[in-house]
Amino acid sequence: MKKEKTAGAEKTVKIKAPENGGARKTAKEKSVSAKSAKNLKIRFLGGVGEIGKNMTAIEYGKDIIVIDAGLIFPGDNMPGVDIVIPDVSYLAENKARIRGIVITHGHEDHIGALPYILRELDAPIYGTKLTLTLIEGKLKEQKINDAKLNCVKAGSVVKLGCFSVEFINVNHSIAGAVALSVTTPVGVVFHTGDFKIDYTPVRGETMDLARIAEIGKKGVLLLMADSTNVEIDGVTISESVVKDTLQRVFEENSSRRLIIATFASNVHRLQQILDLAVKFCRKVAFSGRSMINIADAAEKIGELKIPDDLIVDAERVNRYKDDEIVIVSTGTQGEPMSALTRMASGEFNKVTIGTNDTVVISASVIPGNEKMIYGVINNLYRLGAEVIYESLEPIHASGHAQRGELKTLHSLIKPKFFVPVHGEYRHLKKHAALAESMGMKARNILIAEIGDTVETDGKSIKLGEKFHAGSKFVDGVGIDGADSFVLRDRKHISEDGLIVAVVAVEELSAQLSSVEIVSKGIVMSDAAVAEAKNIVQNLIGHTDLRKVRDETELGGMIKRSLKNFLFKTTKKNPMILPIVMVV
Amino acid sequence: MKKEKTAGAEKTVKIKAPENGGARKTAKEKSVSAKSAKNLKIRFLGGVGEIGKNMTAIEYGKDIIVIDAGLIFPGDNMPGVDIVIPDVSYLAENKARIRGIVITHGHEDHIGALPYILRELDAPIYGTKLTLTLIEGKLKEQKINDAKLNCVKAGSVVKLGCFSVEFINVNHSIAGAVALSVTTPVGVVFHTGDFKIDYTPVRGETMDLARIAEIGKKGVLLLMADSTNVEIDGVTISESVVKDTLQRVFEENSSRRLIIATFASNVHRLQQILDLAVKFCRKVAFSGRSMINIADAAEKIGELKIPDDLIVDAERVNRYKDDEIVIVSTGTQGEPMSALTRMASGEFNKVTIGTNDTVVISASVIPGNEKMIYGVINNLYRLGAEVIYESLEPIHASGHAQRGELKTLHSLIKPKFFVPVHGEYRHLKKHAALAESMGMKARNILIAEIGDTVETDGKSIKLGEKFHAGSKFVDGVGIDGADSFVLRDRKHISEDGLIVAVVAVEELSAQLSSVEIVSKGIVMSDAAVAEAKNIVQNLIGHTDLRKVRDETELGGMIKRSLKNFLFKTTKKNPMILPIVMVV
Repeated sequence: MKKEKTAGAEKTVKIKAPENGGARKTAKEKSVSAKSAKNLKIRFLGGVGEIGKNMTAIEYGKDIIVIDAGLIFPGDNMPGVDIVIPDVSYLAENKARIRGIVITHGHEDHIGALPYILRELDAPIYGTKLTLTLIEGKLKEQKINDAKLNCVKAGSVVKLGCFSVEFINVNHSIAGAVALSVTTPVGVVFHTGDFKIDYTPVRGETMDLARIAEIGKKGVLLLMADSTNVEIDGVTISESVVKDTLQRVFEENSSRRLIIATFASNVHRLQQILDLAVKFCRKVAFSGRSMINIADAAEKIGELKIPDDLIVDAERVNRYKDDEIVIVSTGTQGEPMSALTRMASGEFNKVTIGTNDTVVISASVIPGNEKMIYGVINNLYRLGAEVIYESLEPIHASGHAQRGELKTLHSLIKPKFFVPVHGEYRHLKKHAALAESMGMKARNILIAEIGDTVETDGKSIKLGEKFHAGSKFVDGVGIDGADSFVLRDRKHISEDGLIVAVVAVEELSAQLSSVEIVSKGIVMSDAAVAEAKNIVQNLIGHTDLRKVRDETELGGMIKRSLKNFLFKTTKKNPMILPIVMVV
Repeated sequence: MKKEKTAGAEKTVKIKAPENGGARKTAKEKSVSAKSAKNLKIRFLGGVGEIGKNMTAIEYGKDIIVIDAGLIFPGDNMPGVDIVIPDVSYLAENKARIRGIVITHGHEDHIGALPYILRELDAPIYGTKLTLTLIEGKLKEQKINDAKLNCVKAGSVVKLGCFSVEFINVNHSIAGAVALSVTTPVGVVFHTGDFKIDYTPVRGETMDLARIAEIGKKGVLLLMADSTNVEIDGVTISESVVKDTLQRVFEENSSRRLIIATFASNVHRLQQILDLAVKFCRKVAFSGRSMINIADAAEKIGELKIPDDLIVDAERVNRYKDDEIVIVSTGTQGEPMSALTRMASGEFNKVTIGTNDTVVISASVIPGNEKMIYGVINNLYRLGAEVIYESLEPIHASGHAQRGELKTLHSLIKPKFFVPVHGEYRHLKKHAALAESMGMKARNILIAEIGDTVETDGKSIKLGEKFHAGSKFVDGVGIDGADSFVLRDRKHISEDGLIVAVVAVEELSAQLSSVEIVSKGIVMSDAAVAEAKNIVQNLIGHTDLRKVRDETELGGMIKRSLKNFLFKTTKKNPMILPIVMVV
């Protein structure tokens, strides 16, 4: 990797922001700027819970910049939902004021919502080379060809409206990660993005502490910093330690086949595996679509060096002896459709796991995925493989700073105000306490949530107005609000089952023709079905259908007539779906 | 607690087993005993995955004893299922051969299935005092009054058919836990149950290592031992360490209200909290039904000493100043209906959480519950409370032996054969490796799974016949097989939604009267509904209904006609429920 010169701002590349269509002031914009021109506003959008992770907006007068546009993967309480993206209605209403979307790094939780929100916000995007390459791939999949992508380097400064944004190299579990130092009319806002400090990275530079110290010395108004690992003492292990472990794995398994699962986007990890494969005279087969795509993209931009003749097609792994091949695979989280999961359950025809395989899971478990990944590990053991995973060996390095690194950061930045971001509420609390323990005053620290605005005039800081923010679900072809009735229905049926009660009535005479009761997802005896039919027939027999307003009213009556009976016989509250047919 | 004398078998109490109704030999029994009289068989029943945890059977000739009868709580992939119990069809078929059900301790995963399986197996139950007290409570809830409960003490030996079972005191996170040394015609089988070694327990005795050493010296044929914590080096922290932490919490929060969540069944932990409350002049309020019930039951049998006037009703906590009360609550796993979860979400009217509250979660997170419990912790912080939990302080001691303790056990027992139990497959593998590292031969160690039989004639050990075992779901009022179509339907609908297609046909003319399409859990535009109706109308228009065999055949045709259209418009595969009505 070429060394960037980042020692002083005067040496950095300047990129002029495009005019962005709506640069002429609208009436709305003018009134906004008059009203709150003196306050800098930080708005926390998106995701489910973790502020400053998926999406943040910085606003001053008529200008807005957006930091990141990530997705989250749905929880167990969202059956059938594919992905969750930030609700950007506030930004859509203020579309003309957005000067740019600045991306800190290329992980899904920071870029994954772009294909969806670009339909509503047409703003230029800024990011480093690998970040933009990954974004391009996502946009292409969704057939979006007109995004305005602007490549920056660590050290660059971009002017966006009244803001100037400096990109600063940090370490993380993906290459090309940057922190942002945003100079605003009120003072400097420093947003770390996701970061760690790796003094011995295997590629790239150590986080640019010199530049950060310089910025800190000049004075930072507000720091927003990654809180993920604030509960863990000490410092993260270096990627070099992982390198040593991986080298040992290659040495100790010299006669066995190696299968290494890792995040496709961790190109430095990928590079280490490729380098070791060369050293130990093994070929490499990539397995899993995202692994192949990302390796390909990273090679094209020079982030990944792949020697000629190293890579073989996954279809051909069986032509190599066990000690001649390394399979590099997706599936570190036990994702059901991933290559590793299918290998473990014997459903992956390209690779059959056996007793001469050593499987290395070079990643940590994302909270919530424990059962899935341990299920995969158990299955691999059942097939006779050896498995090496994080609780056994230092085979993965976290990408998020622990307490020791956070202290280094706070001591260099010495911000006037601090808002902890990127973590659950408990992490934000602990991070606030850490800042206090280092001498900050409690009144200068704020904890915010999604939908909060943090406001400062440079002298004090406060929680300002709440605004509309939250999640949208992407599900099949649609995008829904977070309180979707569709989702509520699915959850109801999945817990308690469904009873369909069909009533056919004759159009004119309003006389009952037929009743049918069908259950799904709940057991009803024939007797119970007959009794339910009876209840509905009785109801209709005792009702003057000419006095019933419409089918909805009759449906409601049918529901009420069945509710108690169903609870009594099934000890559940199944969803009751009445269908009234006029025949 | 009274000290039991357990030094030698000659000093132990002997309880004669009742004759158990079916003691006369049936033809079936005779043939079984002739066929395999010389092999001892260990059968692993029950649960989802972890052998030797929920239920195990030991079988020799015509005699069977059952160890434990536990439930597991359902995973996310079992929507609407209340609990999961072992499938005991094998035992039900061999009901007359069962000489007793021996329970190692009173946790749900060891006793919770009893109310259900006793409907099929009518065998006497053996357990220590607290264990039986908890079982009695469960049976009473299910209105089972005729169970044959036999109370034993650590040190007792019970003769059950050809087996004699010695109960040996172990440490665990519940009082009254025992290991079992089962003398069989082939040799001694030692089953640890759930155990740890606590050299400084706060109540009760240290695990009876002297007796275990003696048994080991005489010779153990087969060891089955708890593998849960085999991946963790060293030894578990002692309950005394937790005591010190709790004492410090009381000291440091002398002006604040204390809310301590713990497992109700951990009566030693409960005792410590009560003792500290007395020492620090606070009253105690129990919150949560199981907390009240278990404390009550434990007090009655003397396992819990509750001084007079210590306990106040949870309704009255607001009459006490913050420094005068400790609330002891359920909800350590973030269970949705538990007292702590409702406090955290502000839905518990008896206790309103505020900034002068310190909440202590004195338990570890059971894998899979991470998101729920951290959600509760985040909400408590949001309400301004301080929260102390395991990743911050030694506020809980695991009940399962770590590697150091397992090595002590193996070195004392020195078994001929070893079958690791109670753990995921990965833990069993590691435990097998640990035994090998201590000198056991690989061929003397077996890893088994649910449905496996381990057979030994005393000279060698092997995996014998597979038998029918697995899980049953208890759901509302019914008990279903694990491959329940009901559950499959629920999961299908919760992922992809449901389309009901009702077709009304006239009885005689077999002419179409009406078609209705209704969707639930999936979004369909009006146009898509109209098109779907059209498809079904066309299908029926082009079908000679007189040639259609029955409604099922017509239903199948309707399903096939809609499938592709629905996938194309929704990118999902909703369940299609055709209802054919003859009107």
